Amino acid sequence: MKTRPFERLIPIEDAIGIVESKIKPIDRREKIPTDLAVYRILARDIEAHFDVPPFNRSAMDGYAVIAEDTFGAGQFDPKVLRIKGYVHAGEVTDVEIDRGECVEVATGARMPKNSDAVVVVESTEGEKDTVNIFEPVHPKENVSNAGGDIKEGEVILKDGELLDPGKIGVLASLGIGEIEVYEKPKIGILPTGDEVCPIGMPLKEGKVYDVNSHTVSALVRSNGGKANLYEIVGDRFEDAKRSIEKALENDIILLSGGSSVGERDILIDVINEIGEILFHGVQIKPGLPTLFGMIGDKPIFGMPGYPTSCLINAYVFLLPAMRKMARLPRKEYTRIKANISRRFVSTLGRTQFLTVKVQDGKAIPVFKESGAITSVSNSDGFIEIDYSVNLIEKGEEVLVNLWQ
Amino acid sequence: MKTRPFERLIPIEDAIGIVESKIKPIDRREKIPTDLAVYRILARDIEAHFDVPPFNRSAMDGYAVIAEDTFGAGQFDPKVLRIKGYVHAGEVTDVEIDRGECVEVATGARMPKNSDAVVVVESTEGEKDTVNIFEPVHPKENVSNAGGDIKEGEVILKDGELLDPGKIGVLASLGIGEIEVYEKPKIGILPTGDEVCPIGMPLKEGKVYDVNSHTVSALVRSNGGKANLYEIVGDRFEDAKRSIEKALENDIILLSGGSSVGERDILIDVINEIGEILFHGVQIKPGLPTLFGMIGDKPIFGMPGYPTSCLINAYVFLLPAMRKMARLPRKEYTRIKANISRRFVSTLGRTQFLTVKVQDGKAIPVFKESGAITSVSNSDGFIEIDYSVNLIEKGEEVLVNLWQ
Repeated sequence: MKTRPFERLIPIEDAIGIVESKIKPIDRREKIPTDLAVYRILARDIEAHFDVPPFNRSAMDGYAVIAEDTFGAGQFDPKVLRIKGYVHAGEVTDVEIDRGECVEVATGARMPKNSDAVVVVESTEGEKDTVNIFEPVHPKENVSNAGGDIKEGEVILKDGELLDPGKIGVLASLGIGEIEVYEKPKIGILPTGDEVCPIGMPLKEGKVYDVNSHTVSALVRSNGGKANLYEIVGDRFEDAKRSIEKALENDIILLSGGSSVGERDILIDVINEIGEILFHGVQIKPGLPTLFGMIGDKPIFGMPGYPTSCLINAYVFLLPAMRKMARLPRKEYTRIKANISRRFVSTLGRTQFLTVKVQDGKAIPVFKESGAITSVSNSDGFIEIDYSVNLIEKGEEVLVNLWQ
Repeated sequence: MKTRPFERLIPIEDAIGIVESKIKPIDRREKIPTDLAVYRILARDIEAHFDVPPFNRSAMDGYAVIAEDTFGAGQFDPKVLRIKGYVHAGEVTDVEIDRGECVEVATGARMPKNSDAVVVVESTEGEKDTVNIFEPVHPKENVSNAGGDIKEGEVILKDGELLDPGKIGVLASLGIGEIEVYEKPKIGILPTGDEVCPIGMPLKEGKVYDVNSHTVSALVRSNGGKANLYEIVGDRFEDAKRSIEKALENDIILLSGGSSVGERDILIDVINEIGEILFHGVQIKPGLPTLFGMIGDKPIFGMPGYPTSCLINAYVFLLPAMRKMARLPRKEYTRIKANISRRFVSTLGRTQFLTVKVQDGKAIPVFKESGAITSVSNSDGFIEIDYSVNLIEKGEEVLVNLWQ
């Protein structure tokens, strides 16, 4: 057994920078129902093909009038107008008014010809054929103008915008039932290691269940990516090569594990043969042996096999890469201040991601070891400890990044 | 046409309190693949049915030893141990060691019988059949104990927990491929109003497209609910009653619109006949005419028909109700401070939700009118203005709740 030492550990910022420089936003588009497009990224400009609203409409229940007819109306000196009819919302009518006339209108009703304002029903008193107007209105009062929301020809949504519920509303207001969005990036997740057993199968002596495929795919799926899970990669060169080449059908490939030096070496040999390793070994804890390279134009991550190392490194390296590829904004962690519950000794020279639980304003370290998934699952978030810090005193204030 | 005035507008806090008091967390469970369970709510306690890891394993690549054999080892005074074999990760072997012996082990490999520590490969120099140990280890050093992550019998996840990627990892580590979660609450969304046209259909004279079904369903779907969209409710009593009764197959019913007084009256009559109205009219802007009631044990919201009123009220009233029903934590808005770009006059006596765009530290009001969807779609978030405030001076600091 020969070991290949890490030639040089690089700072985490450099590693993130290298990854970032290799990631291109996705260009593939797909057409999906508008109702399924929430929080997807719009893949074209939307130019309004008609005015919204399409016509002048009443903004209130009341009486459509010629504003001038109401001037001088008062509580004790109403203006009296003749009611010429009623227009319901959605109704088409060619009723029109002249001076001294009005039409009763519902909210949303098309304004009758010649009318230019609406007196709200609360400021009126209707008789049989006439109505008393107790308050004057100015022209355009209580009227929504055609195009007042969106003007025909206006570019109302732009290529690359995130479709939140309000923007879905814009698409709906234009009657657009299907919409082009950018495809989700496909992340191929390949577990490695002879000790790994797929979940749902009986666990044999000496084996452990595959955790990383499921934590990473959960992270991918909840952040706008598509996770494709693959079978466990064989530990012979040709098998590993075949598995990795097959996974090139994705936009990003992520290997987890290769926990023994021999397996790791095989993966490195494969990547070196069909691609290029850009870094291997980062000044980070947990997750030092993280690897990144390119096979053609496809980025490939080699994550440590330990569940906590793998998941935290997926948060640190994969997540920003995938979100950039998906054209999604960076994930912003909610940050809260807390006081650390006990003295904590960190590792000088490595940026540490310390998982903590937050209780009563205290940040309680829950990190057991990199191999324990409970180091993450029992935590509410993490503290990022600079590589230059080696001690946090009990009670010191720390900034906790919450997972959600 | 008769109008029914609002008898009493209630404060927004009272309205939220009434809704809250009527919402019960969902009890229905469903079994789904663990891989699809991210951010769902676990519907039973998970008791570990075996230790994780299931056996003592090496935490590093190196040599499994009897720790005592290494005591006193030093850089210039190595201890020499006889190599008895190699254990690969995942391998089953009954190799055992005696004093003076060791076994080469990969990370994750099962510890050979009698060994109690691992010397990392970097602190050794292997010969053909022997290895020089340059650093002593204490017992248990570099060993992950059986059950060190999760102990057999331990309740490791509890009923009601939110399954984030780390907790998905716990399920995977126990080999659980399918998991019981609480069902998503079903929200039945019913547009009303003769002026409303379904999207994807040609728009007739006097009509506008249905916006609310799509904004509300987008909000529902992106917050852990299931949105069921219904056809436009007829404006005759019997039709409206039939539509609402059909929608009782959901957990919450949401009517949008009924923008004319006549339609609104019909909806009120229907709810009063088959259920009970708990409030109608809230001191909120936009969205004053919001209605809430119960039909049997099913909450029903009547939202204003105007797109901005409807969507903002869905954020204010529906969202907390639905998330409570779904057993999800309250939505916490990211809040940022900004200075308002211009003097803003609010409405005394109504809590106002003012939509704003945030640019260069400035909060720019973008609210046009309640009927304009662009009042929301052009905004990054909203300012909540207390009912007792009627003026915000230009440049005053405000707290913006970001939509995302």
